[in-house]
Amino acid sequence: MAELTLPEDRFLGPDPTQKDVARQLYDTVAGLPLVCPHGHVDPRLLADPDYTFGTPVDLLIIPDHYIFRMLYSQGIRLENLGVPRQDGGPVETDHRKIWQTCAEHFYLFRGTPTGIWLNQELYEVFGIREKLDGSTAQAIYDQIAERLESPEFRPRQLYEQFNIEVLCTTDAATDTLEHHQAIRDSGWDATIRPTFRPDAVVNFNHAGWRTNIDRLSEVSGIEVNGYPAFIQALEQRRAFFKSMGAAATDHAALTAYTGRLSDRDATSIFRRALRGEFTADETAHFTGHMLMEMARMSSEDGLVMQLHVGSLRDYNTTLAARFGRDKGADIPVQSEFTRNLHPLLNAYADDPRFRLILFTLDETTYARELAPLAGHYPTVLLGPPWWFHDSLNGMIRFFDQVMETAGIYNTAGFNDDTRAYPSIPARHDVWRRASANWLAGLVVRGLIDMADAGEMIKDLSYNLAKRAYNL
Amino acid sequence: MAELTLPEDRFLGPDPTQKDVARQLYDTVAGLPLVCPHGHVDPRLLADPDYTFGTPVDLLIIPDHYIFRMLYSQGIRLENLGVPRQDGGPVETDHRKIWQTCAEHFYLFRGTPTGIWLNQELYEVFGIREKLDGSTAQAIYDQIAERLESPEFRPRQLYEQFNIEVLCTTDAATDTLEHHQAIRDSGWDATIRPTFRPDAVVNFNHAGWRTNIDRLSEVSGIEVNGYPAFIQALEQRRAFFKSMGAAATDHAALTAYTGRLSDRDATSIFRRALRGEFTADETAHFTGHMLMEMARMSSEDGLVMQLHVGSLRDYNTTLAARFGRDKGADIPVQSEFTRNLHPLLNAYADDPRFRLILFTLDETTYARELAPLAGHYPTVLLGPPWWFHDSLNGMIRFFDQVMETAGIYNTAGFNDDTRAYPSIPARHDVWRRASANWLAGLVVRGLIDMADAGEMIKDLSYNLAKRAYNL
Amino acid sequence: MAELTLPEDRFLGPDPTQKDVARQLYDTVAGLPLVCPHGHVDPRLLADPDYTFGTPVDLLIIPDHYIFRMLYSQGIRLENLGVPRQDGGPVETDHRKIWQTCAEHFYLFRGTPTGIWLNQELYEVFGIREKLDGSTAQAIYDQIAERLESPEFRPRQLYEQFNIEVLCTTDAATDTLEHHQAIRDSGWDATIRPTFRPDAVVNFNHAGWRTNIDRLSEVSGIEVNGYPAFIQALEQRRAFFKSMGAAATDHAALTAYTGRLSDRDATSIFRRALRGEFTADETAHFTGHMLMEMARMSSEDGLVMQLHVGSLRDYNTTLAARFGRDKGADIPVQSEFTRNLHPLLNAYADDPRFRLILFTLDETTYARELAPLAGHYPTVLLGPPWWFHDSLNGMIRFFDQVMETAGIYNTAGFNDDTRAYPSIPARHDVWRRASANWLAGLVVRGLIDMADAGEMIKDLSYNLAKRAYNL
Repeated sequence: MAELTLPEDRFLGPDPTQKDVARQLYDTVAGLPLVCPHGHVDPRLLADPDYTFGTPVDLLIIPDHYIFRMLYSQGIRLENLGVPRQDGGPVETDHRKIWQTCAEHFYLFRGTPTGIWLNQELYEVFGIREKLDGSTAQAIYDQIAERLESPEFRPRQLYEQFNIEVLCTTDAATDTLEHHQAIRDSGWDATIRPTFRPDAVVNFNHAGWRTNIDRLSEVSGIEVNGYPAFIQALEQRRAFFKSMGAAATDHAALTAYTGRLSDRDATSIFRRALRGEFTADETAHFTGHMLMEMARMSSEDGLVMQLHVGSLRDYNTTLAARFGRDKGADIPVQSEFTRNLHPLLNAYADDPRFRLILFTLDETTYARELAPLAGHYPTVLLGPPWWFHDSLNGMIRFFDQVMETAGIYNTAGFNDDTRAYPSIPARHDVWRRASANWLAGLVVRGLIDMADAGEMIKDLSYNLAKRAYNL
Repeated sequence: MAELTLPEDRFLGPDPTQKDVARQLYDTVAGLPLVCPHGHVDPRLLADPDYTFGTPVDLLIIPDHYIFRMLYSQGIRLENLGVPRQDGGPVETDHRKIWQTCAEHFYLFRGTPTGIWLNQELYEVFGIREKLDGSTAQAIYDQIAERLESPEFRPRQLYEQFNIEVLCTTDAATDTLEHHQAIRDSGWDATIRPTFRPDAVVNFNHAGWRTNIDRLSEVSGIEVNGYPAFIQALEQRRAFFKSMGAAATDHAALTAYTGRLSDRDATSIFRRALRGEFTADETAHFTGHMLMEMARMSSEDGLVMQLHVGSLRDYNTTLAARFGRDKGADIPVQSEFTRNLHPLLNAYADDPRFRLILFTLDETTYARELAPLAGHYPTVLLGPPWWFHDSLNGMIRFFDQVMETAGIYNTAGFNDDTRAYPSIPARHDVWRRASANWLAGLVVRGLIDMADAGEMIKDLSYNLAKRAYNL
Repeated sequence: MAELTLPEDRFLGPDPTQKDVARQLYDTVAGLPLVCPHGHVDPRLLADPDYTFGTPVDLLIIPDHYIFRMLYSQGIRLENLGVPRQDGGPVETDHRKIWQTCAEHFYLFRGTPTGIWLNQELYEVFGIREKLDGSTAQAIYDQIAERLESPEFRPRQLYEQFNIEVLCTTDAATDTLEHHQAIRDSGWDATIRPTFRPDAVVNFNHAGWRTNIDRLSEVSGIEVNGYPAFIQALEQRRAFFKSMGAAATDHAALTAYTGRLSDRDATSIFRRALRGEFTADETAHFTGHMLMEMARMSSEDGLVMQLHVGSLRDYNTTLAARFGRDKGADIPVQSEFTRNLHPLLNAYADDPRFRLILFTLDETTYARELAPLAGHYPTVLLGPPWWFHDSLNGMIRFFDQVMETAGIYNTAGFNDDTRAYPSIPARHDVWRRASANWLAGLVVRGLIDMADAGEMIKDLSYNLAKRAYNL
């Protein structure tokens, strides 16, 4: 049974001079409120003041594909981790047994961001002081379970404890935002904002697209019987989201392809899609066209446009058929921004009313394409390292490859992009420490002075995110 | 005349705290046996107990394209280095003169892995204590030549001295494994295993493919007169290799393309290839199909499948015509795994009987594609940095770009992949030191503790390779 | 008002041992003359002994797209920076006001190479000792303006002060080199050489191509009425450039595509281009063909061939229409060298009379393609990190990704590639410090000894550039 520690100077160093500077910088921002402009926390958690998280496994394992994909990679079946099957067939329900399995394999996460986040969460949020392994599993389960039952572990109490200033959720275009409405109605003094994500009504090949279109008709009150009505309905939803506090939209795309279709082509492709007749090519063209339309709408209604590019979703088709989407089998592909975004940027990116924040899973685009684009266009910002790259090394590469060309002021600060609510403080802490360490490196190499570094650490930790999303 | 030194803390540091931790970790594995699951040592060396290496130039220069391609890049003709011509025309035969030329240009290898290996080999294996240059060339030649004549420089004695636990060779599918048989028959207590490499009978555009097919008929006893017989013959050879101790197969491919052909198409393409009628397109499709077939056979016979992707072989056609294949003119190309491997992975990679180890020459695929794939599929492992990337910086990039997503337990440890037999210890030493240094970096930054690091260094140095290849 | 400092050990470290070694190495080359084999200094500056630079804004802002593209990226219009419009419309003419705007936004350049260069230039060339910001803007403007008026700020005096040994300009194929002639005629004892850059007469889609062809006829005295005459005229111009001291040619291309057309195709494509009839495809093929021809001519006349690949020029079409070319909106694209250069390398790269220096904006090609190519072919060298990558991190990546495979002796040393004349010393200083720091890293990790490092720092700082360009 080994001690779990959380070194005060973690992620810094090792050079003593640089570490000292980094620590000074970090200390000035460690207590700043958390700005969370992009993420996947379920607003339901915050709508109900008495919401509880269930067991440690309900909270930490079953919903977190960062965790169970690593266990799966070492031969543990998802059934044995309690992940629900699409067909409703039996899966493990003994959460202590699941927890034991996870604990026995927790060594797999050594040196990984998931391991770092979880350890910090165990230490700081749940007060655990022993390393998680097979021998400590049940005792730690007890400790977490006990904490989860206490009143201070309601999501709203954690929101205060975590010192969150604003939190944006991600919501389907067809969402009624009833949980957001409930939060507003409850009089709770917190800033929770929805984000407009229309992928499921834009991409024909999205499972359930046709149903989603019907749902869009329903919630918008506009019968989506053709392309013009589709555009109208989307504009109606954006206006509704904006009225509910939305600051941004979000778009996931396999590629960054953009290009305007003629009205005639858009109309005819959409009409055939409604009948279930569409080709892969038409889907790609329509998606690229809709990114143009979304940019147009953003330049009109001021919602910040986020674009997440490059993930081939649900790659393991057997697993997807058995367990559904988002089960840790999304694999990135090579991405291209320069040529793909040319039509969109030429049309909208000099317009000061527009703003575009770009995210990539292909780090080769950082220095080659994204930093030059953000370093030129007044309306293009780079989002922080995303997903697999939301890690210490991912941040080091981001800083080293982006900042010399774009400078920090063409970036959008940090967002945690998480559905793992209690991991939020740990994720921001990694960013703030990585930022401090990077800036300290610039200071000790004589590139910037401490006065500059002092402003930059606040900008990276807090100001840039607020500014990017107009929060 | 300058002293040749081999600093005790080489490749570590420079931060004193990190170096101290790295040294502690390294010291625990410096003496572990060497596991060599993939390489190109000629089994003939080990079949004959009295095998001798010839001159220093026979051993160190003429067979090593890592050496002579660098000399060629600075204008030294291969003829002048004694590399045999295809047409049997005259080349330099004065080995002392060749050695002098190499020594005078040895400064070209400053800071390169080849330089590192050769210096360590000179120092540790041959007892040289002076830097190799024009002024020391002949004295060093004498020293090496003298050692090469002594009985302890027979390959089997070096095997013991190098503390090799197991060594796998790479052998054509048509190989009779007579040298392996001789090793077995000799009663020598060493573990030498063949590896099944069928490229020369699978790829139509391989020089001599048609002849190789005839050879395949001959050695398998199955007349390869069509596609079904071809598959049967391959299965026969795999069974034979397995019976001779093979743990794995190995496949080199220009791209990672996989895809199953219908039996009818496979049959018809193969039939025409037998007649010498095939297109580039058919070759690519057939190769991709055969990777599917090899995965199927692996999932049946349990031979671990290795896939090496991305080298455009014998790029310099003039040189290839004059000196033959593998003359240091293989140039990597951009590679893609996510889409290319999709058919194979979807068909076999959830099957616990299967195992696939991937190697790349395109480092951009580490974080983007390979780590996510290995971090998901239970049967996919990543091989260590390959060829040009089997270097200190190559290892640093591998650790930094792979491990956060895949963890170390989805990697296959190290293999030396060499035909330069006496360089084996130096190559493993670089890996062990680089691993220790990387782990020390995690320790001093508080990401893992010493207990974890202590296990991980043993895993990286020894356990992972054994586990990956079932050795 | 904060002090501007220039730390003696800037860009080194932070490890004290490594920094000490780096400093020792740097000190041996800090005073070496500057070799400038590639850049964009206007020869007019050096032709007139009494040339003056105008205001600080004329010198430092208006001609430097590195500066104003960053300001544009934060919403400052180019009109407000005095950048001339294509239509001659009004732009800001109050240079003190422009300077004030720049100073107020100078924080955008924190940690960027442009910031580093400009600070060093302010400190060393203009004697500024206060950080540039809104509060110090006018005082600093005064100081710079005063210096610019003094006789020691004539370009020729700066040339001596900067300790430049040789400076190559870049000149259109149609240039009469009258400024170069004037320099020669003036009897000034300096080595200023032209470089032959034929892009504007080779690429049909170059704005003004047809006019440039007429100009080519005029200056060559050969009527370019067809393909054979075109080739003849180019050969004539190369001979003229060579007679005027040219050491090299330079070629910018979107891709590295090379391939020989038949005479018949070349003739017919060129004939139609003269009539304004050409397709994108023909343009690409003709460009690829002309690279072959340029390589042929280089192998005949000995001019070193430089190839700069991968920039999509004038990406922002609105901006290009308003302000013309080269306004900080060139965005890199993914590049490929292995397959694209195959025809050219196979035809010319074993010929010792030929030499090719390659530059890339796609760093993924460093380790994957360029280092293996340079590490094989006797005539291929790699140019230093180019443009966005001419930065501290860019150099670190270059050293780490290129040198292990190519060694330093297959690289071309440094060139500053600048049109910002007074920034030349700062740019070379960054390279020399980065080189010293890299070599010190090899020394402290025991990869090379101080004797090797001592030679290598001189090679990187001075010898390699001279050797590469035969200067």
